[in-house]
Amino acid sequence: MLLSGGLDSSTCLAIAREQGHRLHALSFNYGQRQQAELAAAQAIAAWAGVESHRIIQMDLRAIGGSALTSDLAVPKHRSLKDIGEGIPITYVPARNTLFLSYGMALAEVLGAEHLYIGVNALDYSGYPDCRPEFVQAFQAMANLATRAGVEAAAQGKVGLKIHTPLLHLGKAEIVREARRLGLPIDQTLSCYDPSPEGHPCSACDACLLRAKGIAEA
Amino acid sequence: MLLSGGLDSSTCLAIAREQGHRLHALSFNYGQRQQAELAAAQAIAAWAGVESHRIIQMDLRAIGGSALTSDLAVPKHRSLKDIGEGIPITYVPARNTLFLSYGMALAEVLGAEHLYIGVNALDYSGYPDCRPEFVQAFQAMANLATRAGVEAAAQGKVGLKIHTPLLHLGKAEIVREARRLGLPIDQTLSCYDPSPEGHPCSACDACLLRAKGIAEA
Repeated sequence: MLLSGGLDSSTCLAIAREQGHRLHALSFNYGQRQQAELAAAQAIAAWAGVESHRIIQMDLRAIGGSALTSDLAVPKHRSLKDIGEGIPITYVPARNTLFLSYGMALAEVLGAEHLYIGVNALDYSGYPDCRPEFVQAFQAMANLATRAGVEAAAQGKVGLKIHTPLLHLGKAEIVREARRLGLPIDQTLSCYDPSPEGHPCSACDACLLRAKGIAEA
Repeated sequence: MLLSGGLDSSTCLAIAREQGHRLHALSFNYGQRQQAELAAAQAIAAWAGVESHRIIQMDLRAIGGSALTSDLAVPKHRSLKDIGEGIPITYVPARNTLFLSYGMALAEVLGAEHLYIGVNALDYSGYPDCRPEFVQAFQAMANLATRAGVEAAAQGKVGLKIHTPLLHLGKAEIVREARRLGLPIDQTLSCYDPSPEGHPCSACDACLLRAKGIAEA
């Protein structure tokens, strides 16, 4: 499980939990503005009763290129109608590729066959690495890269299966799924630019989408 | 350029240099035993006159699973004939996937279209992530993951091209290529288990393969 502590990945964790998997969570400290995310991830991991929760230290500031890992300002809006088209400035280069790569490494070490990521194609169509064709290509690559993938392919099987149960859900559907599963939504944090105390800004894209989803649900 | 400071990646850098590219080198401190590799990488980067050289701090010890990043012993042999078949214990889970993912992130931020990696299919056929089919699958995935890849595809182009000029060379051919290009081979370090002063052990797989290549060349 890739677990950021936001609504989407937390709901994804709750879905994997309902499906009866033994759970191992992986979070990332990548110099993001939203360090409070990690506290949310720890709270949700504890709620879910995971067998392990690793927080990987990552060095994305050395790469730069995103409002989330540099001094660029996070865009704020009065409503969702003001959000522009195209790929947003909060896009982090190769972020999901890196997250999935670490997840694939851990899966190989644990002998896990399933990797869950809470990407969502509808609300974040501006992020290229949230699309189904990206996830499919990553799974194909992963099974050529790893010992487990090579050994499974020799038996005609898929070694590592990447699960994206939220891929085609709208934000309101995610909220309804989270409520059905008993997820403590108040303990998740979706904001791109929270206060040092972890309070959401209520004006970034992530806050606006979350508020819309909760209102609709 | 992914640059470890070993013979292969250093030769790969020399090849990219001869082809006239502006060079940006990327090395990784991943808790590997061979920290002296990074000093070699810096020496080779200086020799090549790169425009930038970043060293990314990586956290592979949190994942584990390899003799290179854990307390497992690096296997030693009297000769190459003693090296076993299959995937060696020095295989690091998802290492090349992670390295290429960071390289792809940097390429996107720099606007670079070419990414060089010194993987070699002949000598290291035991590593799944050194094979041509892996590299091809990574390139396909990368161009679905990134802003640059999406924009290039919209124009019918390949955004990021991954170059593996050593892929089908034997170790002796790599040594001859390195000599032709004037690479200071003595400044490279291939050993999996060097002394704290950076002296090679002369008995790990990497040392034995390097010695054989130099002898044959």
